[in-house]
Amino acid sequence: MNNYKISISYDGTRYKGWQKQGNTKDTIQGKIENILSKMVSSDVEIFGSGRTDAGAHAKAQIANFKIDTDKTEQEILEYLNEYLPDDIAVNEISKVDMRFHSRLNAKTKTYLYRINYTGIPNVFEKNFCYNTKADLDIDKMREASKAFLGEHDFLAFCSNKKCKKSTVRKIYNIDIEKYEKEVRFYITGNGFLYNMVRIMVGTLYEIGLGKRNNDIEEIFNSKCREKAGITMPACGLCLMEVQY
Amino acid sequence: MNNYKISISYDGTRYKGWQKQGNTKDTIQGKIENILSKMVSSDVEIFGSGRTDAGAHAKAQIANFKIDTDKTEQEILEYLNEYLPDDIAVNEISKVDMRFHSRLNAKTKTYLYRINYTGIPNVFEKNFCYNTKADLDIDKMREASKAFLGEHDFLAFCSNKKCKKSTVRKIYNIDIEKYEKEVRFYITGNGFLYNMVRIMVGTLYEIGLGKRNNDIEEIFNSKCREKAGITMPACGLCLMEVQY
Repeated sequence: MNNYKISISYDGTRYKGWQKQGNTKDTIQGKIENILSKMVSSDVEIFGSGRTDAGAHAKAQIANFKIDTDKTEQEILEYLNEYLPDDIAVNEISKVDMRFHSRLNAKTKTYLYRINYTGIPNVFEKNFCYNTKADLDIDKMREASKAFLGEHDFLAFCSNKKCKKSTVRKIYNIDIEKYEKEVRFYITGNGFLYNMVRIMVGTLYEIGLGKRNNDIEEIFNSKCREKAGITMPACGLCLMEVQY
Repeated sequence: MNNYKISISYDGTRYKGWQKQGNTKDTIQGKIENILSKMVSSDVEIFGSGRTDAGAHAKAQIANFKIDTDKTEQEILEYLNEYLPDDIAVNEISKVDMRFHSRLNAKTKTYLYRINYTGIPNVFEKNFCYNTKADLDIDKMREASKAFLGEHDFLAFCSNKKCKKSTVRKIYNIDIEKYEKEVRFYITGNGFLYNMVRIMVGTLYEIGLGKRNNDIEEIFNSKCREKAGITMPACGLCLMEVQY
């Protein structure tokens, strides 16, 4: 029995997110587990570094699974890429220590959120960014984003109202970059609550539009979801990197 | 009555190419004409700089049309982008001289062909490059591509066997670039025959694979389609620029 760590890219447009839900087969986890289970002729469970939302994407989601096989890492990679649909791909596989767990050992994650705000849709990236026509003040968003840095209770930035676990998370870095016709938000933290990135960006977006003052401190203090900005559409969101 | 020049991007995946064919509505030209005709309440014909193949894309196809309207260029652009499907977008519109014709006045066109040859599919670009696993010798392809430069009879690089017009074309430049996991072919010429770019790249591809020697001179002389390489899949092809 070996423990394997894999890096996976996916275009999440037609999936209900990473995590298997009951019997639904339309999740990334479900797709990969089915193929691995056939490969080794027994049930395989694969552990992701975290859920990603329905419709959101990953450039390098990390997961691990334990199987007994004669195949080399390269052979497993080729087997998976042969049978996976063309919107899921395995980038790398490596044997790791049996104690490695993709979620429990993850130190930080970096998400990207993309907004094309020119009003002219990017036809090639239509599934990977939020298309809008808006006059966004990038400097205002950059300035406001500093309020997110450090450790905070992000309860107001979480869509799960029944969250019983700690909602304290630490944000290490936020870069807001203009890239051709887009603004791109890179957000690195030690963990993210349900919809947290999309609500953080939604709040900055409303600040950029001039619809909202920089009231992020107040939103934190309120611990009230309704005080924060909109949940941005999932299509613009991509898990870029998980660091260990 | 004014003459308008427009620049159009499209993801051609679900279309039968640029050019209207009889009654089929699933062409880029047909989609744009329908919307313009509704806008001015009369039939509008739009002239493209050239056809693009079914399934091929354009970053900046150029076309022109003559209409009588009170709308400004910006208003026409917004009208089109509001009613066009999300895989077609108008980038720019400008009034031009009444004698301007997007095809007849075009001096050069630049096409891009993309091959991801790592065997690991690029899930985000799956509709925009040819995905394969191959050991490609880029230097060999670069060296061989020089034989295409200049003026030649490209009859052997054309899928239309009934072509009655001149099949002489001039290639000004070919750049073959490695870009991350891809090789990208940029080809600039004064015009292109049916499938010409895809057959040129197919021939270079077979040379890069080591399946074929650099026999491009012989292929030219043979004037025989069967002597040239495969027609690469349309998905990897994109019209990048039309120069006037």
